[in-house]
Amino acid sequence: MNLGGSPTVYARPLARLIEQLQRLPGVGPKTAQRLALHILKRPETEVQALAQALMEAKQQIGLCSVCFHLSAEPVCEICRTANRDRTTLCVVADSRDVIAIEKTREYRGKYHVLGGLISPMDGIGPDQLYIHQLVRRVSQERVQEVILAISPSIEGETTTLYVGQLLKPFTKVTRIAFGLPMGGDLEYADEVTLARALEGRRELD
Amino acid sequence: MNLGGSPTVYARPLARLIEQLQRLPGVGPKTAQRLALHILKRPETEVQALAQALMEAKQQIGLCSVCFHLSAEPVCEICRTANRDRTTLCVVADSRDVIAIEKTREYRGKYHVLGGLISPMDGIGPDQLYIHQLVRRVSQERVQEVILAISPSIEGETTTLYVGQLLKPFTKVTRIAFGLPMGGDLEYADEVTLARALEGRRELD
Repeated sequence: MNLGGSPTVYARPLARLIEQLQRLPGVGPKTAQRLALHILKRPETEVQALAQALMEAKQQIGLCSVCFHLSAEPVCEICRTANRDRTTLCVVADSRDVIAIEKTREYRGKYHVLGGLISPMDGIGPDQLYIHQLVRRVSQERVQEVILAISPSIEGETTTLYVGQLLKPFTKVTRIAFGLPMGGDLEYADEVTLARALEGRRELD
Repeated sequence: MNLGGSPTVYARPLARLIEQLQRLPGVGPKTAQRLALHILKRPETEVQALAQALMEAKQQIGLCSVCFHLSAEPVCEICRTANRDRTTLCVVADSRDVIAIEKTREYRGKYHVLGGLISPMDGIGPDQLYIHQLVRRVSQERVQEVILAISPSIEGETTTLYVGQLLKPFTKVTRIAFGLPMGGDLEYADEVTLARALEGRRELD
């Protein structure tokens, strides 16, 4: 890794910190240096708090044994909540999708996190994902609707088709709508989005 | 701090990590969430390495007792290096300026870091900076030239004038050139830069 200079440029512990920070996504050499120099100026208690938060998050957070969302408990808070609709299951690729949907505050059902998408190119098949756990859940619990909330990429389409076929014998399976984003300008929408928006048209009430 | 959702959105250790990451410069809620979710997916040894690098950098790095550059030793590597020109001293506001100049590999003299700029608005006077240590150095060592490498902001100009006056009795004082940046287009240069470039014109060899 090129730290951008002769050995005298950074004191060794600073060089190591910059190197570690550069492993974070979207953090290049310049940002890493800026973050590191900022950190050195903060009080030790503050740096300690960050280091501790890193270790505690990593050590305490695992996956919910029911829905595979990130959780500090064996069963996550969403699965434990009594007043959520148990008959609706929203299937997503990743925990970040659960977080995004929760932030809308529009959904009151439960979730199932697949842990990725089927991608033969990357050697990820159905067995590497939490798909059979999903099928078992749907077949054993009284799920009335499974909403597939998966991005419309090639891997997403493959996964949606595959999971959809598996679940159809047990329950109603729907998928989220694709179309023009709210506030989006028709003129600037790409062709695929526009085609999807036309295809998904609905009659006015 | 708004974590952007109800308490169920993030497991508690994850919420704490996101909160800590948001204290870093240029890291907003979205970036903090992205970094935190990335960190949770990394092996524990890797997270440990980052946490440790943070603590070690903070605990081991202080300021050089001679030039006040960041250093893991009482006297920094640049001050200890024998084959650097001791008669030239480059005065900068911050350690990041030393790093920037070192990366050019063009300068072989020594440094003095002021630790900031004179800014009455922020309550920073000459006594809060390492200015009297600089005057002592220059008056006691055989310094033949002090190069002031300080940004041309209001605070920078004030500091340059103040330090320049103090040092002139002891040695030759110069300041770095300001003008059109290399690769810069004259047409797009701001007026102040262009005025400085004209003012600083030199006769062709």
